[in-house]
Amino acid sequence: MDETRRPQLGPGPEFDLIRSMTSSARAPGDARVRIGPGDDAAVLRPREGEDIVVSCDMSVEDVHFRRAWLTWEEVGWRSVAAALSDLAAMGARPLGALIAAALAPELGTEVADSLAAGAGNCLREYDCPLVGGDLSRSTGPAVIDVTVLGSASNPISRAGALPGDELWVTGDLGAAALAAAAWERQLEPDVRARHRFAHPEPRCAEVEWLRTRMDIHAAIDLSDGLAGDARHMATASEARLLIEAEAIPLHAALEEFSDREVAVRIALTGGEDYELLLAAAPGAGDGTRREFESRFDIPLTRVGRVEPGDDVVLLLADGAVGPMPSGAYDHFETRRS
Amino acid sequence: MDETRRPQLGPGPEFDLIRSMTSSARAPGDARVRIGPGDDAAVLRPREGEDIVVSCDMSVEDVHFRRAWLTWEEVGWRSVAAALSDLAAMGARPLGALIAAALAPELGTEVADSLAAGAGNCLREYDCPLVGGDLSRSTGPAVIDVTVLGSASNPISRAGALPGDELWVTGDLGAAALAAAAWERQLEPDVRARHRFAHPEPRCAEVEWLRTRMDIHAAIDLSDGLAGDARHMATASEARLLIEAEAIPLHAALEEFSDREVAVRIALTGGEDYELLLAAAPGAGDGTRREFESRFDIPLTRVGRVEPGDDVVLLLADGAVGPMPSGAYDHFETRRS
Repeated sequence: MDETRRPQLGPGPEFDLIRSMTSSARAPGDARVRIGPGDDAAVLRPREGEDIVVSCDMSVEDVHFRRAWLTWEEVGWRSVAAALSDLAAMGARPLGALIAAALAPELGTEVADSLAAGAGNCLREYDCPLVGGDLSRSTGPAVIDVTVLGSASNPISRAGALPGDELWVTGDLGAAALAAAAWERQLEPDVRARHRFAHPEPRCAEVEWLRTRMDIHAAIDLSDGLAGDARHMATASEARLLIEAEAIPLHAALEEFSDREVAVRIALTGGEDYELLLAAAPGAGDGTRREFESRFDIPLTRVGRVEPGDDVVLLLADGAVGPMPSGAYDHFETRRS
Repeated sequence: MDETRRPQLGPGPEFDLIRSMTSSARAPGDARVRIGPGDDAAVLRPREGEDIVVSCDMSVEDVHFRRAWLTWEEVGWRSVAAALSDLAAMGARPLGALIAAALAPELGTEVADSLAAGAGNCLREYDCPLVGGDLSRSTGPAVIDVTVLGSASNPISRAGALPGDELWVTGDLGAAALAAAAWERQLEPDVRARHRFAHPEPRCAEVEWLRTRMDIHAAIDLSDGLAGDARHMATASEARLLIEAEAIPLHAALEEFSDREVAVRIALTGGEDYELLLAAAPGAGDGTRREFESRFDIPLTRVGRVEPGDDVVLLLADGAVGPMPSGAYDHFETRRS
């Protein structure tokens, strides 16, 4: 009946955390939110005729991040950004978020406040009201689970890629993986790479803009790495995805590798980029690309095409077609789960 | 880049867990689910004109339950039931659930399967499709976060209680707290009390039925205990809630206490009952109560009334009005957080 009981609600730390995030993330009179935090549940009003898109993303200390790598504010941002990236991949606009966190009491209110500030900053940046949450004590590592709801009149699945489609990638790849690899080797990562790991930017506005100019058949966010996520799209779409190694947009921090092949493997297998892979009807021209790059200040790159089949292959510079790398990448002499 | 990286998606344990729960919890062709688990996000179709109701509930091992107390199947049921109870309190019908879990690898697949089976049983019992989830390794205690979405054309808030309303409670109270107290004293709990702790039954159907016969102004689920939850309703409604001590429906397991006052205190402060406290316009008669009890096989009890004010008071048998007990309850010589 003591510490194994549910912490009392009321004016305790749970409410402080939620209030802290709410005040920074929710405009009063938001038409999307009929009842916000503080009731048994939140009540959201979907846009008329639109579907509800929902996803959750759990971040566990020492599994998805380490305390020595990130500030708690960055942990908060990253946890929310990872969840919002799933909405971007569906072409959905944010409707509301719920954040559940389990924190060891010895972390204190300063950590909870920092976490809330980072989460709140990301929610505000992406105009996503915080509508609920749950804060619990824990005897173990910090756990943050973010659930996001969005709405879309015509959500994009990962299953719609068609033979003949072109494959596009937003942004550049590999930097987050490079930072994680440096940390694992007890090195200080390149500052640009570190920023990409700590501060991913879900491509919500980008996909919304692109949908008005391209006929996007399928989308997936690059959380596992281009190789793995392309495989997910291929499987779901029952199609072959052919990726051109030379076309893969590499982050500038990967220029430290004189061997482009090494850099490409990091970009393919590294993950954590939270960029988007899109399959779109062919024909989107250089005009769209240039306008996109000028508007969003990130590259938009055609990286391959969709063919009949059911796998993922890599087209090498010499025109040979090889299997997509996967699993352990031993350049850093590390293991993957 | 090794164990701190996101576990690969694909045909791994995450998909097994989700598939296991999905297969037990989701009927194919469910009109509510346009895209189920396996995409970046799920897509749900709300009922036309209805609002979305959403809540999350996190269960942490050694905080909300102990491994020695419950089977993993019971942990799964209880985690889902606690979240669905929030939908019941809003008068919402389940639309979909997402389950995120962090489990230590040494627990093995048998534990994950049991957890999934219990969660799946509860989802199926309440006709709530599983639409997403996230499974992570963890180095610490098991953490399960359940997010539930429901829909309602006119959700019930906890903020609507009006002076003159009658207060009603579904079911009987105190058994779950009694079980927890026994465990804390290293005793085997009463088998009926244990069942109520391990297998709470959200009152979804009950509230839906009652709404057609009573004008329910406010509702809250009894997770903290009647005293605390009545206080939440009073604060949100800006009203005084007067609870009659003699009227509180006590679970039969509390008959072990010869002193009714002790049993009442357990029922008031114990929590974990997941029954509902309702504030309804006066006049619902004995006919409604009898029909309810016959249909649902649980009591429906008028426990008090709403008055002008902003607090919660206890009306004692001798007609005196006393403050509501709160905080530490020292009969079991235990501490509360």
